[in-house]
Amino acid sequence: MSKQQIGVVGLAVMGKNLALNIESKGFSVSLYNRSAEKTKELLEESPGKNFVGTYSIEEFVQSLEVPRRILIMVKAGQPTDDTINQLVPHLEQGDILIDGGNAFFPDTQRRNKELSDKGIRFIGAGVSGGEEGALKGPAIMPGGQKEAYELVEPILTAISAKVNGDACSTYIGPDGAGHYVKMVHNGIEYGDMQLIGEAYHILKDVLNVSTSELHEIFSEWNKGELDSYLIEITADIFSKTDPETGKPMVDVILDSAGQKGTGKWTSQSSLDLGVPLSIITESVFSRFISAMKEERVAASKKLNGPATAAYDGDAKELIEAVRKALYASKIASYAQGFAQMRAASEEYNWNLDYGKIAMIFRGGCIIRARFLQNIKDAYDRNPELKNLFLDDYFGGVIESYQEAWRKVVAIAVTRGIPVPAFASALAYYDSYRSERLPANLLQAQRDYFGAHTFQRTDREGTFHFQWMDKN
Amino acid sequence: MSKQQIGVVGLAVMGKNLALNIESKGFSVSLYNRSAEKTKELLEESPGKNFVGTYSIEEFVQSLEVPRRILIMVKAGQPTDDTINQLVPHLEQGDILIDGGNAFFPDTQRRNKELSDKGIRFIGAGVSGGEEGALKGPAIMPGGQKEAYELVEPILTAISAKVNGDACSTYIGPDGAGHYVKMVHNGIEYGDMQLIGEAYHILKDVLNVSTSELHEIFSEWNKGELDSYLIEITADIFSKTDPETGKPMVDVILDSAGQKGTGKWTSQSSLDLGVPLSIITESVFSRFISAMKEERVAASKKLNGPATAAYDGDAKELIEAVRKALYASKIASYAQGFAQMRAASEEYNWNLDYGKIAMIFRGGCIIRARFLQNIKDAYDRNPELKNLFLDDYFGGVIESYQEAWRKVVAIAVTRGIPVPAFASALAYYDSYRSERLPANLLQAQRDYFGAHTFQRTDREGTFHFQWMDKN
Repeated sequence: MSKQQIGVVGLAVMGKNLALNIESKGFSVSLYNRSAEKTKELLEESPGKNFVGTYSIEEFVQSLEVPRRILIMVKAGQPTDDTINQLVPHLEQGDILIDGGNAFFPDTQRRNKELSDKGIRFIGAGVSGGEEGALKGPAIMPGGQKEAYELVEPILTAISAKVNGDACSTYIGPDGAGHYVKMVHNGIEYGDMQLIGEAYHILKDVLNVSTSELHEIFSEWNKGELDSYLIEITADIFSKTDPETGKPMVDVILDSAGQKGTGKWTSQSSLDLGVPLSIITESVFSRFISAMKEERVAASKKLNGPATAAYDGDAKELIEAVRKALYASKIASYAQGFAQMRAASEEYNWNLDYGKIAMIFRGGCIIRARFLQNIKDAYDRNPELKNLFLDDYFGGVIESYQEAWRKVVAIAVTRGIPVPAFASALAYYDSYRSERLPANLLQAQRDYFGAHTFQRTDREGTFHFQWMDKN
Repeated sequence: MSKQQIGVVGLAVMGKNLALNIESKGFSVSLYNRSAEKTKELLEESPGKNFVGTYSIEEFVQSLEVPRRILIMVKAGQPTDDTINQLVPHLEQGDILIDGGNAFFPDTQRRNKELSDKGIRFIGAGVSGGEEGALKGPAIMPGGQKEAYELVEPILTAISAKVNGDACSTYIGPDGAGHYVKMVHNGIEYGDMQLIGEAYHILKDVLNVSTSELHEIFSEWNKGELDSYLIEITADIFSKTDPETGKPMVDVILDSAGQKGTGKWTSQSSLDLGVPLSIITESVFSRFISAMKEERVAASKKLNGPATAAYDGDAKELIEAVRKALYASKIASYAQGFAQMRAASEEYNWNLDYGKIAMIFRGGCIIRARFLQNIKDAYDRNPELKNLFLDDYFGGVIESYQEAWRKVVAIAVTRGIPVPAFASALAYYDSYRSERLPANLLQAQRDYFGAHTFQRTDREGTFHFQWMDKN
């Protein structure tokens, strides 16, 4: 019997769609799922396709070409370890496992090491794009042994999204690098969604725009610098009507956000690395507050906001200012996300290529956007760029948009509209461009109560002052 | 030979000062340090004191009354485990180890469990107040077995700070509760310091006040609602002159803040618990940005802020508005910190008593402040209070201060002064009191690209909408 070119373990929707995608590109695929039904279902739905169903781990492994290429699409965490442990006794030296789940990157680092010690190669591949992306072309972020990547590259390149002919899949770096970059991608997605939400909140509260006007505004925005998947679907969402009530769909949806933890991981990693990731973190916190729905409803009856009059400025001008604030804040959020990848790359010796990462984010994934080309261009101009703000294009945008940005935040703050992400983005910009911050006072305080010492502005060294002496 | 009432292992400055404090309250103390010199030094410096020096772990343990009470004052992390491992073979069932270091609370939970399994009791005690507090009376947050606490209570109560005769030490809860509360204390300290720094930044940049005027302003503030150790030392700091240059001390100190990780832990825990801790987290991020001194100096030459004119408002009025913004932001920060302790108490079954915690924060520790009495009073009025904002006193302050608070944030934002903590505090208040947040749009987006489902405003259940169908 002939052997298949790749195997897929785990046939829930993501695994199933990736299997269909791989097969559609001309590869033969062995299928295995813990319960046989899903395997049979997929075979029945796919007559004539180059699929081979298998019903034991051993049969599955034996059905594959050597070195074996096995894509694991099970739940992150213990199920991934369980699947690896079931596979390993049947594998041979040089076989390649690919984890396409949303693994926490230290788990990927550990698995890579444990499997390497056994002669098994391991690719942790971030896969973005949801169900539809998995089927039609996701962005793929593979990390692990370079030579193992070379052996799976033709398949990953074939199934990935394409932008102007470029594949949205590229080798990211060793061990956990791929899952790390996918994690930051998800964090950035949290930020993008929160920023859009704040823009929506301001437009709705200050200008009382209708849902159909919101549809127009976001459709218009999607034609310019903000052109992106998330703006596009936001415009589309505003066009939808609830068939039950006839109201706009957004108005019948409860304002209580869920999350799956990757945003949180990104924030926790930034804290470990010592890099500021305030915009994404505020976005995670905002989801937490949104989920406290009952507590908020109770609080809203007791806590009053400011007294506000109807907005007497020009509506069109404010809409444009909000667009500028959104774009400037988005730039700040990506500046933080890319700076964090840079810190992680140094910490874990990954040698990340930020331009390539921006390239593969351009298609397939949720944060795909026209402006990722500008990020790519910025890293082409300077591969060592420390912060996107320092690039001429981005620095120029911020400088010319800052007046609008400041105005929008001031209006929201004055009128009682929470804009944690807009405001933290602006504070980040203003902190980053500050030659002098008030941390001198903070160091004085630390030296006062804890003798933590300080540095001086005028010469090298570490100093302590006898604060409590008379002087 | 008579046995001593308590032993202290580790005689660096904190251990030494606690030993002196304990002895001064009439307890006999055995001393042990890894290197004998420190033990000898302390004995030589303290003739006639009730100290017994010991020079091996065995001798140390044998010198103590049973059940033994041993205070461990070594570095957090591995050194603490090493010390415990050296002690254990010499201990008997029922002996009590007290870890007075800045342990990470999951370590305390683990140590409590491991030692319990061996019949050894373990108290993780947060100790706040720095070197001076250790000597003269710290705030102490002991967690662990209640019956073990009872056996060390007389000593802890005796050595702790006192406020109006009340000891700033009380049983916090099981296993890691004491170290957890100490961690949140430190996080709150990060927030307080950042908020003071932002107030300083605004006063200096908008009003060009001199250091001696800052001394006057903070001295004045310290007479009112803001009365606290940190405001007091801030006022004092502004009165100090650098003997080398004759300039104000604050002006010769480099604006690059250090940190020791407990603020970071607090933020990471909030992310794990799913509670918003934006103010403290922005404060941690601000320290990170401050430490990027060279990068900021370079950025300051390239990135411009807004064009601003001299402030033409009333200076006195703005100073008072900044005071109000500082107090309101401080309330928001404590609201978040106490809400996080509440979430931790539920998660780890600690049954924390928030009023008691506020009580012991009133003295000895860095965040000691008059307004902690208001927090105590709030929990007396309602021990189940979900958020400080919902207390009549705090809700009332915020409501009457919000206009000033908003004005100050708007001025800073407009003039390019970074106020991440002031702004996130205000966003937290505005989010918390919002019956409706824009998370409905976010849920629509998640359902659109990932079929994550949503809830409706008008009836129970979980729903999915076919966004991509024409309708």
